[in-house]
Amino acid sequence: MIDKHLIEAQNASRHADLEADYDALGTRLARRGVDIEALTTRAAGFDVAVPSWGTGTGGTRFARFPGKGEPRGIMDKLDDCGVIHALTAATPRVSLHIPWDKEDPALLREKAEEVGLGFDAMNSNTFQDQPDQAHSYKFGSLSHTDAATRRQAVEHNLECIEIGQQIGSTALSVWIGDGSNFPGQTSLSRQFDRYMEAMGQVYAGLPDDWRLFSEHKIYEPAFYSTVVQDWGTSLITAQELGPKAQCLVDLGHHAPNVNIEMIVSRLIRAGKLGGFHFNDSKYGDDDLDSGTIDPFRLFLVWNELVELEDMPGLNLSHMIDQSHNVTDPIESLIVSAIEIQRAFVQASLVDRVALEGYRTENDALMAAATLRAAFRTDVDPILQMGRLRKGAAIDPVAAYRSSGWRAGAAKTRPAVAAGGGGIV
Amino acid sequence: MIDKHLIEAQNASRHADLEADYDALGTRLARRGVDIEALTTRAAGFDVAVPSWGTGTGGTRFARFPGKGEPRGIMDKLDDCGVIHALTAATPRVSLHIPWDKEDPALLREKAEEVGLGFDAMNSNTFQDQPDQAHSYKFGSLSHTDAATRRQAVEHNLECIEIGQQIGSTALSVWIGDGSNFPGQTSLSRQFDRYMEAMGQVYAGLPDDWRLFSEHKIYEPAFYSTVVQDWGTSLITAQELGPKAQCLVDLGHHAPNVNIEMIVSRLIRAGKLGGFHFNDSKYGDDDLDSGTIDPFRLFLVWNELVELEDMPGLNLSHMIDQSHNVTDPIESLIVSAIEIQRAFVQASLVDRVALEGYRTENDALMAAATLRAAFRTDVDPILQMGRLRKGAAIDPVAAYRSSGWRAGAAKTRPAVAAGGGGIV
Amino acid sequence: MIDKHLIEAQNASRHADLEADYDALGTRLARRGVDIEALTTRAAGFDVAVPSWGTGTGGTRFARFPGKGEPRGIMDKLDDCGVIHALTAATPRVSLHIPWDKEDPALLREKAEEVGLGFDAMNSNTFQDQPDQAHSYKFGSLSHTDAATRRQAVEHNLECIEIGQQIGSTALSVWIGDGSNFPGQTSLSRQFDRYMEAMGQVYAGLPDDWRLFSEHKIYEPAFYSTVVQDWGTSLITAQELGPKAQCLVDLGHHAPNVNIEMIVSRLIRAGKLGGFHFNDSKYGDDDLDSGTIDPFRLFLVWNELVELEDMPGLNLSHMIDQSHNVTDPIESLIVSAIEIQRAFVQASLVDRVALEGYRTENDALMAAATLRAAFRTDVDPILQMGRLRKGAAIDPVAAYRSSGWRAGAAKTRPAVAAGGGGIV
Amino acid sequence: MIDKHLIEAQNASRHADLEADYDALGTRLARRGVDIEALTTRAAGFDVAVPSWGTGTGGTRFARFPGKGEPRGIMDKLDDCGVIHALTAATPRVSLHIPWDKEDPALLREKAEEVGLGFDAMNSNTFQDQPDQAHSYKFGSLSHTDAATRRQAVEHNLECIEIGQQIGSTALSVWIGDGSNFPGQTSLSRQFDRYMEAMGQVYAGLPDDWRLFSEHKIYEPAFYSTVVQDWGTSLITAQELGPKAQCLVDLGHHAPNVNIEMIVSRLIRAGKLGGFHFNDSKYGDDDLDSGTIDPFRLFLVWNELVELEDMPGLNLSHMIDQSHNVTDPIESLIVSAIEIQRAFVQASLVDRVALEGYRTENDALMAAATLRAAFRTDVDPILQMGRLRKGAAIDPVAAYRSSGWRAGAAKTRPAVAAGGGGIV
Repeated sequence: MIDKHLIEAQNASRHADLEADYDALGTRLARRGVDIEALTTRAAGFDVAVPSWGTGTGGTRFARFPGKGEPRGIMDKLDDCGVIHALTAATPRVSLHIPWDKEDPALLREKAEEVGLGFDAMNSNTFQDQPDQAHSYKFGSLSHTDAATRRQAVEHNLECIEIGQQIGSTALSVWIGDGSNFPGQTSLSRQFDRYMEAMGQVYAGLPDDWRLFSEHKIYEPAFYSTVVQDWGTSLITAQELGPKAQCLVDLGHHAPNVNIEMIVSRLIRAGKLGGFHFNDSKYGDDDLDSGTIDPFRLFLVWNELVELEDMPGLNLSHMIDQSHNVTDPIESLIVSAIEIQRAFVQASLVDRVALEGYRTENDALMAAATLRAAFRTDVDPILQMGRLRKGAAIDPVAAYRSSGWRAGAAKTRPAVAAGGGGIV
Repeated sequence: MIDKHLIEAQNASRHADLEADYDALGTRLARRGVDIEALTTRAAGFDVAVPSWGTGTGGTRFARFPGKGEPRGIMDKLDDCGVIHALTAATPRVSLHIPWDKEDPALLREKAEEVGLGFDAMNSNTFQDQPDQAHSYKFGSLSHTDAATRRQAVEHNLECIEIGQQIGSTALSVWIGDGSNFPGQTSLSRQFDRYMEAMGQVYAGLPDDWRLFSEHKIYEPAFYSTVVQDWGTSLITAQELGPKAQCLVDLGHHAPNVNIEMIVSRLIRAGKLGGFHFNDSKYGDDDLDSGTIDPFRLFLVWNELVELEDMPGLNLSHMIDQSHNVTDPIESLIVSAIEIQRAFVQASLVDRVALEGYRTENDALMAAATLRAAFRTDVDPILQMGRLRKGAAIDPVAAYRSSGWRAGAAKTRPAVAAGGGGIV
Repeated sequence: MIDKHLIEAQNASRHADLEADYDALGTRLARRGVDIEALTTRAAGFDVAVPSWGTGTGGTRFARFPGKGEPRGIMDKLDDCGVIHALTAATPRVSLHIPWDKEDPALLREKAEEVGLGFDAMNSNTFQDQPDQAHSYKFGSLSHTDAATRRQAVEHNLECIEIGQQIGSTALSVWIGDGSNFPGQTSLSRQFDRYMEAMGQVYAGLPDDWRLFSEHKIYEPAFYSTVVQDWGTSLITAQELGPKAQCLVDLGHHAPNVNIEMIVSRLIRAGKLGGFHFNDSKYGDDDLDSGTIDPFRLFLVWNELVELEDMPGLNLSHMIDQSHNVTDPIESLIVSAIEIQRAFVQASLVDRVALEGYRTENDALMAAATLRAAFRTDVDPILQMGRLRKGAAIDPVAAYRSSGWRAGAAKTRPAVAAGGGGIV
Repeated sequence: MIDKHLIEAQNASRHADLEADYDALGTRLARRGVDIEALTTRAAGFDVAVPSWGTGTGGTRFARFPGKGEPRGIMDKLDDCGVIHALTAATPRVSLHIPWDKEDPALLREKAEEVGLGFDAMNSNTFQDQPDQAHSYKFGSLSHTDAATRRQAVEHNLECIEIGQQIGSTALSVWIGDGSNFPGQTSLSRQFDRYMEAMGQVYAGLPDDWRLFSEHKIYEPAFYSTVVQDWGTSLITAQELGPKAQCLVDLGHHAPNVNIEMIVSRLIRAGKLGGFHFNDSKYGDDDLDSGTIDPFRLFLVWNELVELEDMPGLNLSHMIDQSHNVTDPIESLIVSAIEIQRAFVQASLVDRVALEGYRTENDALMAAATLRAAFRTDVDPILQMGRLRKGAAIDPVAAYRSSGWRAGAAKTRPAVAAGGGGIV
C-alpha cells in the first residue's frame, strides 16, 4: 500500500501554505456567517463508494487501450481501491460487479480489511454472456421472451444477493440493457410486464435489511427502446416492488437538456431516491470524470440533496460510476471523489436563510446569485484540511505519483493487449 | 358554411378514380388477409378535437404575421371549426380556452349546434395576465409563492369547469407555464408542493363525471425549470389527485431523442393516460402540423394505442394543438386531422398475429418489417372513401379552396395588424 | 444618473474587506506565479457592449410581463445603459436595433455623450413587419422568393449602415429569421442563393472601415429549416462575401450538446470570428443571463479566446444578448457583464506553460486539472478592485438598489400593459 | 452462392401478384403524369456500396453477441456481400477496411470477380491498435502530439491507397476518432493544425483519379471534443486539401435535432459533397438499419440529392455503414439497400414543377403536401419489378431464408465466442 510516511512527508511540505489559505478562507466565510470548522467537520463526514471495475482502463465499442499495471482481478482491484481511500479518506467502500468480481467471500472480506475498505451495493450483470451460460442475453435478460432465460437472470441476481450477504453488503443495484434496436422488435408493454414479474422474484429474495436499486438509462446498449428508459419507469418499478425498492440516478443516463436536479427533487418527494452513480457527460452516457464537464450541474444536484437532507427516511447510497479511457484510473477516481465532495461542500455553503427570503419575494436575481456565491467559493482549503486531519494527503495525486504505485504494479501485473471493441 | 352542393360536385369529379384506387387497394389488402371494408368503417369511427385558438394565425416571440379573415372571437372560431368538420367529418368537437373564448354559454351551445359541433375539454389559462386581474402570474400561478395568487388561479380553473358544465364538456386540461429561469430562483420541491395543494383544490371542484388532465412540458415559457416537466411528474400528479386525474401527452413537450411511444405504453399500463395533444416538432415545442416532420413517429404512437386499445378502462381524449404561423389555419387543421387519422388507420393495418410471432422468436428484422409494411401502405383511398360516405370531401383542401371561404371571411372580418412578439 | 457620492459611500463601506480579500488572493496567486496586479489591470481592460433592447423586459410567445419603469424609447434605454456602465465600468458601448431605436442621430450622439457611452454594432430587423412596410416578411426577407421584398430588406440594412455611420458605429450584425416551417416549403439551396445575392448587395454598401457580422441560429422563429442554421453556413457566407465579413457566435444558437469552444477555435483559425453574443441557455435559445446555467462552458469559450488572443488580425466584438423576463433588466445586464468578465479573468489565470507541458505528455488528468484550477479561483476581489479603481461600484447591484433608480423611473415612465405573446 | 434457380422459383410464385400491383400503381401514377416504366428504369440504375465489416455481427462497449456462421475473414465477407448483391442487384461494390481486410490483392480481385462484385472506397483504421504496431493511437493518430505516431498513421493511409489501387478502388475515406475526453486535454486549435498537416501528406499521395473523403462525427470514441466534429470542420478540411478532397456525410454523426438535408444542400453548393454513409439512429451514432427509425428523414435527404442531381460535377459515392447487433447482417444489409433505394425512388416521384409553383407562391401547405404525396406512394412494385428484371429476387429476404445460406455458413464457419465489449 501507500507508505504513510510518504503521505506525511508530502503533507509536511504543504502544511504552512494550507494553514494560510485555510485562515484566509475562514476569515472570509466568517464575514458571511459561516463557521469554517463546522464545514470542515461536515466535509470530513462525506464519503462515496468506488466501483471495482473503475480501476481498470475502460474502452468504447471502437477500442480499449489498456494502461500499465492493470489489475488482474478483484484482489488487485481492491488493492487499487485501498490506495484511493488511503489518499483521499473519502472512499471507504467498494462496489462489486458479479461475475467479474466473483471470489471466495472469506478472501474478499480478508482483503478488504487489509486495505481498510468495506463493501457497498452489489451489481449484477445480465448484459453480457458468460462462457458457461445456458441462455444468451442477446435478446434480453430479465425481460426476455423466454421464461428460462428470465429465470437464469433472476437466479443470477439472487446469487449476487447471497454473495453480498457474506461480505456485508446491504443493497443490490439492477441495471439491465434490455430493450430493442428496431421499432416493432418487442412489445413495449409486455416486455415491461415480463421485467416486473422477474424483478418481483428478485425482490422476494431480498433480505429485510437490504435495498434494491432500480437504475434507468435512456439508451445504450439498446438503441431504439430501453425497458427502464427514464425515471418515470424507474419510479413505477420501485412503487410496484415495495418499500425496499428505490431509484438510482446515474448522471449520464438522461436525454439531452434534461433538468436532473428536478428529478432528484421529485424522487425524494416520492420517497424513492436511493442514491447516485456519479460521473459527467457531454453527449450520451460518456462516463467521464465527475465534475469535469459541467461542475455547476453537479453542484445543483448537491444543492437539492443538501436542501432536502432532513427529509424523513432519506438514506442515500452514493457511488462513482465512470469509464477511465485515457487516464490512470486510480488518479481519475481520486480526483472524482474530491470533485463530488467539493460540490457537496459548496452546496453546504449556500446561505439558505437568505435564499428562502429571495425566493419568497421572487427576487430571482439575488436567489440565483446566492447559489453562485456558494459555488464559486474555492473550498479547496477545507477539503485539504479535512484530508490532512484524517491522515490522508493534502494533494492526493501528487502523493500518488511520488509513491511510484503504478510503476510498481506494472512490474507485478503483466501487460494486457489492446482490445478491439465491439464493432469488429 | 360550406355549401353541400360544392362538396358533392367536387366529389363527383373524383369519384371514379377513387373507386378504382379503392378496389386496387382492396385487392392488395385482401391478399394480406385484411378486409378493406372493415378498415374503412374503423377509419370512419375516428375523430379528433380541434382547438378553438388553432383557427387564428399563431406566432413566435419574434413576431406574429396575421392572415386574411382572422376570426374575431369565439363565434368566428366556431364557424371555422364547422368548416373543418364539414369537409373532413373527423373533427366533431371543439376545445375552448378560457378566458379567450368566454361567452354566454347559451350562445356557445346555439352556435355549436348551428355548425354541427360539440365541446371537448376545457382549457384554463394562467400563463398570461388579463387586464382586470388582481394578481400577476409573472412569477407563477398555481404554484406561486403567494397564496392569494394561487387562490386566484384555482378559482379560474373552477370557473372553467363551471362554464364547461354549461356547454357539455366533461374534462379540464391544466397546463401551466410555472417554473423558473434561474437555478435557485425557486425551491423545486416546495414549488411542486404548492402546485399539488392548488391542484387538489381544483380536483375537489371536479364533477363526478369529469376528468382532469395534467399536461407536462419540458420547458417554455420557463427556461430553467418547469413544475410539471415530464411524464414522471405528471404521473405523480395524477396518482396523488385521484382516479379522475389523468395525464395528457403533447407530442412536442419532450426532451430531444425521447421515445414517446414508450411513455404512451407506460402511462396506459399505469392506468393514467388521458389523451393527446397532437402536433409535430423538430427542435422544441414547435407546434407544427401533425405528421409533417416525422410521420413514422406519429405512426409508432398510434401503434401503441392500437396494440393496447382493449386495455380495460382506456378512454382517450384526442386533440390537435398546433400553431399555424405560415398557413391558412383551417387548411392546416384539415390536413392535420387527416394525417392523424392516417396514422391510426396505418396502425390498424399492422398484422398483429405475425408481429407477435416474430417477437416471440426475436426475429427483429421481420418484426420491424411488419410495422413498416403497414406504415407504407397508402391508405388514402380508405380515408377518402370514408369521407365520401359521410358526406365530407374526398379532397377537403381542394373543396375548401374552391369554396372561397377565406376570401369571404376576409370581407366580413377586419384585417388585424402584425404583432411584435414578446421580445421587444 | 447614479450619484457618484452614492457609489463612493457604498464602496467606502466595503473597502477594508476588499483590501483583505485582495491581499489574501494576491498571496495565493503569487505562490502560483501569478501577479495579481497584472491581472487586475487586464481585467480593467475588459469591456462588452450592451444591447439597447435588453433594457426592456423580454417575453415569450406565451406572454410578456412588463416590469416597473420600463424605458419608453431609445433615450430612456440609453439612460439605463448609462447606469449599467457607471456601476460596472465594463459596458462602454450600446448596440442599436433599427427601427426600434430610430432617432435623430445628433440626438443619439448627444445623449450617448451625456451618459458616457459610445455605439457598438448596428442591428437590422427583418423578422418583424413594421406598420408602414410595403412588403411583408411573413415568408422571408433577404431570402424571400419575391425580389421586391428582398430589395426592401437590403435597403433596410443599408439604412442601418447609414445611421450607424452618423453615430460612430463600424459594424452591422445581420441575423434573419428566414427559413421554413415545413419540409418542402422552400428550396433549401435556392433560398440560400437568394440570401447570398441580397447579402452581396448589403456588403457592397459597407464602408471600408466597417465589418459585417453573419449570425447563425439553428431554429426559431423558423421551425423546420433556417437559412443560416449553423456556423458552417455562416462561414460560407463570410467567405463568399469578402474580408470585411465575419461570423458572430451567439452562445444559445446551437444544437444540443454541441461543443461551442471548438467552433470558436475553428472560426479563429479560418480568420472569420468576428465576435460574440453572450447569454446562457439550457434548452433552446433561452437567452438567459450569462454564466447562470453553465458557467464552465462560458469559461471554456474564454479559454479559447485567451489561448488564441495573439492570432494575427483577431479583433473581436462582444455583446450581451439576453431576454430578461423575470428580473430588473438593468440588474441582469450588470450581473451578466460581470460574469463574462469573470470568465475572461479566470481564463487569463490558466497556467499555460504547465498546460502545454501536460498536453505534450498526454497527461489528460493534469491538463484538465490545470483548467479547473483557474476556473475555481474566486476572482471576485480582482473584479471588485478593478471597478473600485475605475470609480465604479464594488457591489454594483447593491449600489443600484440603494440608488432607487427603478423607483424613480417608475414615476416618470408610465406603466405598460402586459402583452399576450404570439400564440393568441 | 445463392442458386439462381431458387431465385427464379421464388419469383415465379410472386410474379402474378407483382404484375397486378405494378399495373395498378402504373395507372395511379399515370394519373399524376408519371411514367412508371421510366421510374423503374431509374430505380434499376440505383446502387449503394456495402461495407465488408457490416457482414459481421456488431456490438457495443457492453458486449457483442455473435451470430451463427460469422465470416472468418475478408473472403467469407466477400461471399456474404455476393449473396446480398445476387438477391438485390443493388449492391455491386464492397468497401474494405484496412487492416481488417488485408489480403493479397490478386486474391481479392479474383474472389470479387467470382461473386460478381467490385471495390468501393478504401477505409483506413487508426482508431485501434494492431498487435504489431510501433506507436499507440490511445491519444490520437493523424493529430497525435507525437510526430512519429502521426507519420505512422499517414503511412497507414498511404498503404490503404496502395492496396486500393491494386483492386480498382478510387477513393479513400478518412474517419478518425481523435479528440479528447477532458476540457483542456488537447489544444483544440493545434490538434487540428497537426491533423491538417498529416492529411496534407495523405492527400499528396493520392493518385490523380482518386478522391479523399473527409468524414465528420460529433462524438465517440472521444467524449469531450473530436477533431472533425461537424460538417463545418469537414468543409474547411476539404477546402484546404484541394479539389480531390470532399466531405462524406454519415447520417448518424450529428448533434440532436440537426437538419441534415440542409447540410447536404450546403455541401453540394460548395462543391464538396462526396457521398454518404447510410444508416439510421435515434440517440447517438446508433448505426441502426437505414430507414427503420425515421424514414421521412431519409426521404428528405434524397429529396435534396434528386433536386440537385444536375449540379455540375456532382459525383456521389454511397455506402451503407451500420452495426448489426441483433439481426442476421446479410438480411439487414439487404433490407437497408432496399430502403435507401425506396427513398431514392420516392424522391424521384416528387412533382417538381408543382412544387416549385407552390414555393414561388409561398403556399407552404401544398408544397409540403407535394413532398408527402411522393413519400407515401408505396413504390414496392417498382422496386420489385426492377429486381425481377435484373434477375434478382422479388422478395430477397424470403429467398435468402429459403436458400439456407446461414445454416450452411454455420457448418463451415466455426462459432465465435461472445465478446466482452470495451467496458470491462
